[in-house]
Amino acid sequence: MPYEIDETHDPSLESWVESANDPETDFPIQNLPFVAFHPGDNDPDETFGVRIGDSLLDLQECYAAGLLDDLKKQTAHPINFVFRPGGDMAALCEASRDELTAIRRAVSALLADRAGELGTSDELRARCLMPVQSSTPLRYTEIGDYTDFYASIHHATNVGSMFRPDNPLLPNYPWIPVGYHGRASSVVPSGTAIRRPVGQQAPAEDGGTPSFGPSKLLDYELEMGIVIGRGNELGEPISIDNAEDHILGMCLLNDWSARDLQKWEYVPLGPFLAKSFASTVSPYIVTMEALAPFRVPAYERGDNLPQPLPHLDSDHNRAHGAVDVTLEVYLSSQRMRDEKIEPMRISTGSYRHMLWTPAQMVTHHTSNGCNLQPGDLLGSGTVSGPKRENRGCLLELTWDGDPWAEPPVMKPGTERTPIVLPTGEERKFLADGDEVILKGFCEREGYRRIGFGECRGIITPARA
Amino acid sequence: MPYEIDETHDPSLESWVESANDPETDFPIQNLPFVAFHPGDNDPDETFGVRIGDSLLDLQECYAAGLLDDLKKQTAHPINFVFRPGGDMAALCEASRDELTAIRRAVSALLADRAGELGTSDELRARCLMPVQSSTPLRYTEIGDYTDFYASIHHATNVGSMFRPDNPLLPNYPWIPVGYHGRASSVVPSGTAIRRPVGQQAPAEDGGTPSFGPSKLLDYELEMGIVIGRGNELGEPISIDNAEDHILGMCLLNDWSARDLQKWEYVPLGPFLAKSFASTVSPYIVTMEALAPFRVPAYERGDNLPQPLPHLDSDHNRAHGAVDVTLEVYLSSQRMRDEKIEPMRISTGSYRHMLWTPAQMVTHHTSNGCNLQPGDLLGSGTVSGPKRENRGCLLELTWDGDPWAEPPVMKPGTERTPIVLPTGEERKFLADGDEVILKGFCEREGYRRIGFGECRGIITPARA
Repeated sequence: MPYEIDETHDPSLESWVESANDPETDFPIQNLPFVAFHPGDNDPDETFGVRIGDSLLDLQECYAAGLLDDLKKQTAHPINFVFRPGGDMAALCEASRDELTAIRRAVSALLADRAGELGTSDELRARCLMPVQSSTPLRYTEIGDYTDFYASIHHATNVGSMFRPDNPLLPNYPWIPVGYHGRASSVVPSGTAIRRPVGQQAPAEDGGTPSFGPSKLLDYELEMGIVIGRGNELGEPISIDNAEDHILGMCLLNDWSARDLQKWEYVPLGPFLAKSFASTVSPYIVTMEALAPFRVPAYERGDNLPQPLPHLDSDHNRAHGAVDVTLEVYLSSQRMRDEKIEPMRISTGSYRHMLWTPAQMVTHHTSNGCNLQPGDLLGSGTVSGPKRENRGCLLELTWDGDPWAEPPVMKPGTERTPIVLPTGEERKFLADGDEVILKGFCEREGYRRIGFGECRGIITPARA
Repeated sequence: MPYEIDETHDPSLESWVESANDPETDFPIQNLPFVAFHPGDNDPDETFGVRIGDSLLDLQECYAAGLLDDLKKQTAHPINFVFRPGGDMAALCEASRDELTAIRRAVSALLADRAGELGTSDELRARCLMPVQSSTPLRYTEIGDYTDFYASIHHATNVGSMFRPDNPLLPNYPWIPVGYHGRASSVVPSGTAIRRPVGQQAPAEDGGTPSFGPSKLLDYELEMGIVIGRGNELGEPISIDNAEDHILGMCLLNDWSARDLQKWEYVPLGPFLAKSFASTVSPYIVTMEALAPFRVPAYERGDNLPQPLPHLDSDHNRAHGAVDVTLEVYLSSQRMRDEKIEPMRISTGSYRHMLWTPAQMVTHHTSNGCNLQPGDLLGSGTVSGPKRENRGCLLELTWDGDPWAEPPVMKPGTERTPIVLPTGEERKFLADGDEVILKGFCEREGYRRIGFGECRGIITPARA
């Protein structure tokens, strides 16, 4: 295991926050994801803590109340800044693995100890613990740079086969974790409304005039977000063995995409306005420590794909580099909400099926000397798996062809097969009023299930 | 004229800072570019001011000394923050055009008034004015996002003709200012050493194993940087008529490029590690106010190219949208410096020859609702002109073919023609120890010449 399994992962451990002991919760005491939030509906202040059951524990208040005095001695000054008023999660990103483990143990003990100061004092609890409903989770910190990868071989094969049925994967694909720079300013927290973007679309005929108007092919992309912890100096690459020391944790990411804008603009320099109108992140950063029990071998390349070059390869990465996160996409139309119909699950898959691991992405990204900075966001790329039900975006999901072949064969030029919602409404791409909800969780025999919460966004009409 | 020409542009205006009256200086009193700097060699503090002749005027000291009291009344609170200790140029970015004009007038008056308080007091001058040699100019502010465009039709034609001689321009090129997200964390100030990047390069044969090592095809790209002033809210596009109200000013930009990494990685999602190891910006932000006399019509599209769609077009942009900046690239090898040989000018051109104007880039960028933020950097893309001597990077400059045809015809697959340096050394791409120096200036009959200073970087060997 790349990370120590300790008493904080014990599946029998319970919290005095009763909602954390519900077997269905994403947030048992074994999870403890970090979150930035406004402590009240009308409170402009921002604070920082962990999610536990249906509540948020304000670690700045705990620190002020002296509940983290032991931890203070085990962590360095800059990290402790996150626990003080005005402290930002960027400070936490500087923490070492040992410090993150110390924080996890301290917070776990605080939430397990029924007889302790916090567990027994109504006044302290009122000050430090609040229902998630009365607070507003935020984007975890300012994001300096956002990089989006393309690490699912199934996604790359599906999309590639739309354009090149005989040769879907480009020659560089098995060798480099293909990625591109994304737009950091428009990364928004879960729940932010997503205005349908306007943009140029290809002319109907070669040589014609392009049109300009609301996107007609608006899509989501199911991704994992990898949050960078410690940065590296410009010119100093991060080796595969050290890569995970630079990752704070993971979240859910919806990399909304306007496919018609993308098709017209992306040659030769890549996606731009098709992506930069918004990307949504879930608020809870599940730490690599919490994910320790759910590490699995990297993608098995077999005889069909070459092994990576040495700088992107290690025994440890092959054995434990991937993370087994089950992912789900739910869709809810305005009419479904009006008729009180639950969101419909339209796909499911696992992050473990990616060709490239988080460590390989970090090492590749810095191999040229590029500097990562605390809080930077790496997107995994659309998470698609081997089956039709594993396709991570509508571009793939509604494409016609032979969906049960492995990999599925997509036929260019054919009609799309719409998704039929419980109301009878059909969707090839997203309609105004549609809400997309991403969910993710980890399960393994002998361990407590932990989850990522939700990453939500409703499409609002284009600007008039 | 898009901006008022006023007494600050009067070519007969002189400063009591005598070096500013040298006809050769880039920084007469008619220029007054903003600059962030460390006031001394060993001073960790950062301050803010303008360049004048061979000196820097510290506007935070001027403000503290009461020399800007009149200005204080004409500008809003957030902008005045830049004048206070610790103030960052990001605050200045929020200024309106009226406020920027008021700042320009106040600083111009301060530096013109020989009989004034600053002009006559040795003590005040010692406090507020310092030789540029004893200070360290910095990157102008934290850059949230960096976007690189591809706005020179000559560059796009040259590069396109290497791969597609019969059809060098892609169909979208006349319609959209093609751009892509760049890496903000590795934008460095002029003078920063540039470590040769390491990376993957294409296999020698199809289906072979790629190599991994120092880039062999390291290049510079001559660009203009456009510094965003006021931002826009997510979801709220900026119209072509308002676009320049969101631009603080311009600087020089070298978008270093590793062509071998680029060739292997860039399909299908665009340049990534080939660019993200470093981009260099010059420290002086020449304001749109200072550039007012040098505005010229946008690229004349004639009968061969369609006019832009209405949202990217305006009479004003057609008549005044471009900026006439003469640009030069100088190269100096280690041996040239050892032998005290001056840097060699290897190309020259003008920013006026770009297909897309700064306003069109801003409007396109935000047309999908993407939010620009104060201090964001837009790169123009490589500035190449119609002639061989106007080519803005070595990829174009050393390519064989018919260089005097207009546009030059590039023959794929032929040998490169090296540049021969005064020492007899030859260059097809950059060697370790090479220094690249970009310069830029504006000249027009009846106006004082103003310049951008220099954007420098020396290539150091790849990491062992």
